[in-house]
Amino acid sequence: MGKGEDTRSKILDAALAQASEGGFESLTIGTLAAHTGLSKSGLFAHFGSREELQIAAIDAAAERFADTVFVPALKAGRGLPRVRAIFEHWLRWTEDSGLAHGCPLHAAAIEFDDRPGPVREHLVARYEILQRNLERAFALAVDAGDLPADSDPGQYAFAALGIVFAYYHAARLLRRPDAADRARAAFDRLLAGAPAPAA
Amino acid sequence: MGKGEDTRSKILDAALAQASEGGFESLTIGTLAAHTGLSKSGLFAHFGSREELQIAAIDAAAERFADTVFVPALKAGRGLPRVRAIFEHWLRWTEDSGLAHGCPLHAAAIEFDDRPGPVREHLVARYEILQRNLERAFALAVDAGDLPADSDPGQYAFAALGIVFAYYHAARLLRRPDAADRARAAFDRLLAGAPAPAA
Repeated sequence: MGKGEDTRSKILDAALAQASEGGFESLTIGTLAAHTGLSKSGLFAHFGSREELQIAAIDAAAERFADTVFVPALKAGRGLPRVRAIFEHWLRWTEDSGLAHGCPLHAAAIEFDDRPGPVREHLVARYEILQRNLERAFALAVDAGDLPADSDPGQYAFAALGIVFAYYHAARLLRRPDAADRARAAFDRLLAGAPAPAA
Repeated sequence: MGKGEDTRSKILDAALAQASEGGFESLTIGTLAAHTGLSKSGLFAHFGSREELQIAAIDAAAERFADTVFVPALKAGRGLPRVRAIFEHWLRWTEDSGLAHGCPLHAAAIEFDDRPGPVREHLVARYEILQRNLERAFALAVDAGDLPADSDPGQYAFAALGIVFAYYHAARLLRRPDAADRARAAFDRLLAGAPAPAA
């Protein structure tokens, strides 16, 4: 990694920490300069605009998510073991990657749902990739015979995302000590219950 | 309704519309004055601070939610009919109550999860009430014999909230045309599947 890339990577770490705490709305060249101690002109050398910075932070978050959640799950066997590994890594991903204040992609999803433009488009593209990766893991579990042959991987992916969102809500807003247990029980039930209806 | 209360109610309508679009972060006495055409001093007469305004908007949103989702569901019989009515009203609640840009309580949940203080406490209390109302509806369905006797209403409420969050995400961020169908299929599966494991 060259010096420029290394600096860029450190800046993006700081940007993600800031977005995790205050949302992307809080992320401007000015506030990031204040957080990192770098000059605004130095930051502009790396990111030409606030929008470019926000897009780079979304990319960095999505890459870190993939490295923390999907890549390690490849060590688990195809089928339910891998699906379960993805889910367990997902529950812990913000802690495991040092984002103490929650998932920046989740914050961005709420912040940008009504703001047309390149940041929103970028975020949607990243969530579509996440969705496809998740669907593929469920499809492999169907192929492996771990889930009923007539199940719809897209429906499983939809439900799994909902369980993670409910977990974030219970753990981060309500500070419920049983949030992870609730999430695991819901996921077990999703995997064990009746076949998912076709879409 | 006296003139003062009527004005307050109109101001809160505007505050909710603003929070629905830009989040509570966007809601200040100044931006609300610009949106409503009222003077800042006039707004200060109703709400002494930004915090007081945000708390009043959260209360207004929670009351509107209850009036749009839970109250009409009381017309449905106890048990699964009422649980299903709550769910259907919930999917439509922002449209039915003129909040074109999504659920302000959902936005607030992400915005305030890491911000200690009275607004957060107020929001948590409102979500606890929502959770209790939802649990009660599921408990009545258990009592009515519509759900297995050993099911845990709290687990159903957790899962139902997750399905709604996944619906918001699919409908508002990803603009998926099948978002409501996915949500209904997930809810059907929740109600029809294996008994919910005890917490």
